[in-house]
Amino acid sequence: MTRFSFRLSATDGKARTGVISTPRGEIRTPAFMPVGTAATVKAMMPESVRATGADILLGNTYHLMLRPSAERIARLGGLHKFMNWERPILTDSGGFQVMSLASLRKLTEEGVTFSSHVDGSKHHLSPERSMEIQKLLGSDIVMAFDECPALPATEEDVAKSMRLSMRWAQRSRDAFGDRPGHALFGIMQGGVTRALREESAAALTAIGFDGYAVGGLAVGEGQEAMFSVLDYAPGCLPEDKPRYLMGVGKPDDIVGAVERGIDMMDCVLPSRSGRTGQAWTRRGQVNIKNARHQDDPRPLDEACTCPACRNYSRAYLHHVFRTGEMISGMLLTWHNLHYYQELMAGLRAAIAAGELATFVAKFHALRAEGDIAPL
Amino acid sequence: MTRFSFRLSATDGKARTGVISTPRGEIRTPAFMPVGTAATVKAMMPESVRATGADILLGNTYHLMLRPSAERIARLGGLHKFMNWERPILTDSGGFQVMSLASLRKLTEEGVTFSSHVDGSKHHLSPERSMEIQKLLGSDIVMAFDECPALPATEEDVAKSMRLSMRWAQRSRDAFGDRPGHALFGIMQGGVTRALREESAAALTAIGFDGYAVGGLAVGEGQEAMFSVLDYAPGCLPEDKPRYLMGVGKPDDIVGAVERGIDMMDCVLPSRSGRTGQAWTRRGQVNIKNARHQDDPRPLDEACTCPACRNYSRAYLHHVFRTGEMISGMLLTWHNLHYYQELMAGLRAAIAAGELATFVAKFHALRAEGDIAPL
Repeated sequence: MTRFSFRLSATDGKARTGVISTPRGEIRTPAFMPVGTAATVKAMMPESVRATGADILLGNTYHLMLRPSAERIARLGGLHKFMNWERPILTDSGGFQVMSLASLRKLTEEGVTFSSHVDGSKHHLSPERSMEIQKLLGSDIVMAFDECPALPATEEDVAKSMRLSMRWAQRSRDAFGDRPGHALFGIMQGGVTRALREESAAALTAIGFDGYAVGGLAVGEGQEAMFSVLDYAPGCLPEDKPRYLMGVGKPDDIVGAVERGIDMMDCVLPSRSGRTGQAWTRRGQVNIKNARHQDDPRPLDEACTCPACRNYSRAYLHHVFRTGEMISGMLLTWHNLHYYQELMAGLRAAIAAGELATFVAKFHALRAEGDIAPL
Repeated sequence: MTRFSFRLSATDGKARTGVISTPRGEIRTPAFMPVGTAATVKAMMPESVRATGADILLGNTYHLMLRPSAERIARLGGLHKFMNWERPILTDSGGFQVMSLASLRKLTEEGVTFSSHVDGSKHHLSPERSMEIQKLLGSDIVMAFDECPALPATEEDVAKSMRLSMRWAQRSRDAFGDRPGHALFGIMQGGVTRALREESAAALTAIGFDGYAVGGLAVGEGQEAMFSVLDYAPGCLPEDKPRYLMGVGKPDDIVGAVERGIDMMDCVLPSRSGRTGQAWTRRGQVNIKNARHQDDPRPLDEACTCPACRNYSRAYLHHVFRTGEMISGMLLTWHNLHYYQELMAGLRAAIAAGELATFVAKFHALRAEGDIAPL
């Protein structure tokens, strides 16, 4: 049985490329993880998600514990079998979504009680319960249970919250125990304050995790503030473990994060955009709703090999979006996930070749040109 | 270039099996045509529709003329290219949907003017305009423009409407002209009155079509009344041409129609049911919403080879329906279309083997047993 391991194969500046090995398959880094919130990447068949090049999915503990419940998924053989995805799955801890979605939250040192946003039912999460749930789901990469303070927050509140998360990180580590082939990641907090980030990194490193996430970013602080944290935060973490930036992001966020030493990311953006008529291409964002596309026989991106670009015109994509057809979300989500994975493959190849700067310059130049001109 | 042709290969009682040949491929009969109303079979990729065994799709003239318009589709290379379906397409004439969906209809001998149900814009359909639209779409099997009287209707109204449709059938024939490789089908009307059905069949046969539809059924008259018409109506039509029963139906409607000599059918039922949590199996109908499925690890139908049955439990299908996930409609539609095509394949094989009665008896017996018992 393969144990969980991480091997770096090349670096270029602060950027890194390598492979995470798990019993369920390899994850090429830098990796983008599509989000399968409720045991499905919305509008996609799992085999199609794999066809885009995804090595790993993210599942949401909060959503799955409410519906259909972790115990039910365990009885049914685990999340992989349930959702027909045999490759690695990372689950978040539930902490972030409790704060953003649940109501009637009550936070104590022990954990958090809350009411479901679905039916108002009462639930409880703590480091121990989060570890239990993620084990019931059968997650390959388990996230420590943390607290993410609501913004805006004072530095004092951020510090207090971060220190609570560090105590919960220790409890998560203790509750996780020894599970060969499965990994536990700690989550750095500390907002945009360097001293707090360093304190958090030191606390996590002292506990010891299989990987380290940078949490508490992509919560509305803006790209500049995020990059200013990423200019130093990855360097505070052990070099020989994967570094995961949670909830990021737009393509240029991803490129900037990889340049700064991030190995893993996840975001709902490509799938959510696909359902609202937004496509991401090498030339930036395309709003397929726009009437300029209604007679356009050209594909979204002539260089893209996804089914939406190979087989359909912009005029068709415009038509099915306007008429509210499900194939609109299916095709645009597929395209967006394909584009994201192609971007990751490009980043990995560029780092391996020591040509990241050239790749990034071309990436920005083509986006600056913008979408092809209307016919 | 293959001309449009029909070759019967076997009969069993009144039931027939054969092949319709077109330049875009063969259609094995009896055939079920999935409905691709607005240039998409809802919730399905066209390659998945083909994978279920469909040889031909139906497109709706009424919907397509409104959005994105026949002229636009023609400029974009025709409906096949537009929707990425290279195989045969049958288009209806628009007449039925004008009557059921449009508002402010004004019917004259010349044709019908109406307001779009989408945006209220004014439109016109006549035999000549319907032929023009279906040519612009690039339809392989074009339907004559007819009128379907709103029910309930007096026998006098049905007769009057049928005779108008027969005059329109002649005008459709004249306007269609000679288009090698493309077919024009006439549509028999006459309600549930045998004398009117015979009069209609004689009128159509005198004009001469490449195939003949039985129209004006499946409009709420019930299976018994429909079968009582089908007991004689197909026999009024030329034996050497395909017979198409429009808008039918449930699996047992299909079996009964095939037994009575029908070669082609279409219906939104399998795709529409798929989006509302209804599955059709060899054992009848399954309502996946029902709580009895929430812990059931078994597939919808263990003998079915569709992706929904091969890769997912009833518990998963229940979960994604309850959480409103798109994959619910995608999987159930795929299953339903697969089941329908498997039923057609079974009917064809049974007719070819002269064993239709046995096949039909087994079909009804398994349905009578009902769904598998809850765990």
